[in-house]
Amino acid sequence: MNDQTVMKPYVIGLDLGGTNSVFGIVDARGDIKATTAIKTGSYEKVEEYVDACVDVLQVIIDQVGGIEKIKAMGIGAPNGNFYNGTIEFAPNLPWAHDGVVPLAKMFSERLNGIPVALTNDANAAAIGEMVYGVARGMKNFIVITLGTGVGSGIVVNGQLLYGHDGFAGELGHVTMVRGEEGRMCGCGRKGCLECYCSATGVARTARELLSKTERPSLLRELDPEKITSLDVSIAAGKGDELAKEIYDFTGHMLGEACADFAAFSSPEAFIFFGGMVKAGELIMKPIREAYNEHVLKIFKNKAQFLVSGLDGASAAVLGASAIGWEIQ
Amino acid sequence: MNDQTVMKPYVIGLDLGGTNSVFGIVDARGDIKATTAIKTGSYEKVEEYVDACVDVLQVIIDQVGGIEKIKAMGIGAPNGNFYNGTIEFAPNLPWAHDGVVPLAKMFSERLNGIPVALTNDANAAAIGEMVYGVARGMKNFIVITLGTGVGSGIVVNGQLLYGHDGFAGELGHVTMVRGEEGRMCGCGRKGCLECYCSATGVARTARELLSKTERPSLLRELDPEKITSLDVSIAAGKGDELAKEIYDFTGHMLGEACADFAAFSSPEAFIFFGGMVKAGELIMKPIREAYNEHVLKIFKNKAQFLVSGLDGASAAVLGASAIGWEIQ
Repeated sequence: MNDQTVMKPYVIGLDLGGTNSVFGIVDARGDIKATTAIKTGSYEKVEEYVDACVDVLQVIIDQVGGIEKIKAMGIGAPNGNFYNGTIEFAPNLPWAHDGVVPLAKMFSERLNGIPVALTNDANAAAIGEMVYGVARGMKNFIVITLGTGVGSGIVVNGQLLYGHDGFAGELGHVTMVRGEEGRMCGCGRKGCLECYCSATGVARTARELLSKTERPSLLRELDPEKITSLDVSIAAGKGDELAKEIYDFTGHMLGEACADFAAFSSPEAFIFFGGMVKAGELIMKPIREAYNEHVLKIFKNKAQFLVSGLDGASAAVLGASAIGWEIQ
Repeated sequence: MNDQTVMKPYVIGLDLGGTNSVFGIVDARGDIKATTAIKTGSYEKVEEYVDACVDVLQVIIDQVGGIEKIKAMGIGAPNGNFYNGTIEFAPNLPWAHDGVVPLAKMFSERLNGIPVALTNDANAAAIGEMVYGVARGMKNFIVITLGTGVGSGIVVNGQLLYGHDGFAGELGHVTMVRGEEGRMCGCGRKGCLECYCSATGVARTARELLSKTERPSLLRELDPEKITSLDVSIAAGKGDELAKEIYDFTGHMLGEACADFAAFSSPEAFIFFGGMVKAGELIMKPIREAYNEHVLKIFKNKAQFLVSGLDGASAAVLGASAIGWEIQ
C-alpha cells in the first residue's frame, strides 16, 4: 500500500443499470464501506440524473471522512466508452438513448475534480476480478458474463483489451452457427453465441426442445413463453433429463467458443460471471469437457475454468469501483 | 533516434525456415545493409548449426563495423517461444524436432552478449509491420499470414499478444466449419480456417470443385494433385470463372473470420502477408465484402484491410530483425 492509498484509501463504484444506479465506497481490499442507490430511469435529463446521484453520494462520502479520502470513481455502464468517458446511444437509459453523454467528466466536475473512468459492465467485471476476485495476480484471462446477454472482458498483458475504438471484447457476438439455420440475434445478425448461451438463449433452447419433441419433462408444467434459465436449472437439479440436456448443450457451445478464444489470446483462465453461473457444475462441467475436446493440442488442459470470485449482490459495484484503482 | 541508436545503429534479423536460414543486418529505417544465408537442415546438432551461423554472420558484422554497432538480434522461427527464447519440438528442424532448444541464449553467448529475442514467423511479421511496414503508428492490428498454413500475429495496446504461455495468436486454428463436414486439418481437428484459406486450402478447394462439378475451367488442363494456389490465381487472371469462384470462397471465409476477430480485439487494421497476397484484389475484395456483411454493426466500415508493406523477398528477415528493436 503506497502513500497515496493511505491518504486516499477509497474509490467510488457506480453500477449503472437500466433500473437502478447503485453506489459503493470501497477500500483496496474490496470491502464496501458504504452504499446507496437511486432509480436510473426517473430522470429525463442527464443533468438531473447527476444532481440526484451527487445528492445521495454526498451522504456516504461524508460517512467515510469526506471527498479528500476518495482517490477516484469508476462507472460500469451499458454502452460505456472507456476512451471518451462517455455513454453512447444506450437504448435503456432515457437520458442517453439518443446521444453521447460525457458522464465521467460530469461526475468529476461535481466531485471536486477526482478522476472518473467509465467502461461497460463486462469490462468492469474483468477489472473487478483482477483487483478483488479470482484473477488476482493473473495477466491474461477472459471474463464471460452470462446474463440476459453474453458479455466479455478480456485482459491481456495485465491490461483490459479495449481495441482501437474502445469496443473490443464483444465475445457474445462471435458467430457459432453459420448460415441460415443460426438463431436470429438482437444485434440483427444470426447464430451469435449470445442467442444460445445467455439466460434468454437457455430459455429459447428449452422452448425449442419442448416443442420439437414429445419427451417428458418437468418443464412441461410451465407456460413455455415464461420459462426462464432458473426454471431449467431447478428442473435439472431435480434430475429432469431434458433440463440437464439443455445445460449440456449450452455448456458445450460455450466450451467450443472458449476453444476459439484460446487460439486468440491463450488466457490462463476463463472466468464466468452472472446469474446463470448459479447453475454450477451443471454448466461448468460441459464447458470444460467441450473445451478440452475442441481446443488446439498446445492449449489442452492448460486454462482454468473459474466461477466469479466477487460477491453476487455487490459484484457489479465492486467491478465498477475497481476501475477507480486502475486510473493513473 | 536516441543516442543508443546512433552508437548501435543496427539489428540482426534471422529468418529461420525449414530450408534456409537467412540473415540480414538492418538499420532503424528497415534498410538491409548486408545479408547472408546457410542451409538450416545441413546440421544434426544445434551447436553445429550455431557455429555455422556465426561463421557467416561474422563476415557481414565486420562489413558494418563490428559487433559494437549491433544493438540486438531478432529471430523468427517455427515453434519459437518468445518467453523462453526457445524453439520447441519443431518437426521440420533436424536439431530441434524432439526437444527444447535455447537458441536465443546460444546466439547471445556467441555474439558478445548482445540481447537476442525469438518468436514465431507470424509474430515476427506483425512486429515487422509495426516497425517498418504499413502498421507504423498503429497500436491495435492483426497480421494474417497466408502461406502453406495460416498464421497470425496480434498487436493490442502496441504490444504483441503472447498470452500466458507464449502461444497466443493461432488464428489459423479457429473453427470455421463445425461438425463432421469440416475439412480435416493438420492439427488433428476439423474445420480450421487454415484448411480453407491457406495456399494448400485453396488448392484443396480447387480439387473439390473440379471433381464435384463438370464445369469447364482452365484448371482442368492441370494434374489435379499438383494444382497450386498460384495456378488458381493465374487462371483467375485469365478470366476463368471457376478459379475466380475459388478465390471468392476463400476471401469470403477470411472475411467472416475477421468479423469474429473484430469482436475480440477491435483492430484498426487487418494486414495480409505471404505468397497468396499476390492475388491482390482477387482475394482482398471478397475479404472486405464478407467482413462488412458479417461484422457487428458497431465495427462496420471501421477496420482497414491492407496488404503487407514489407518487401516480399526480404519481408521475413525484416520482420525478424524488428524484434531486435523491441528488446528493452
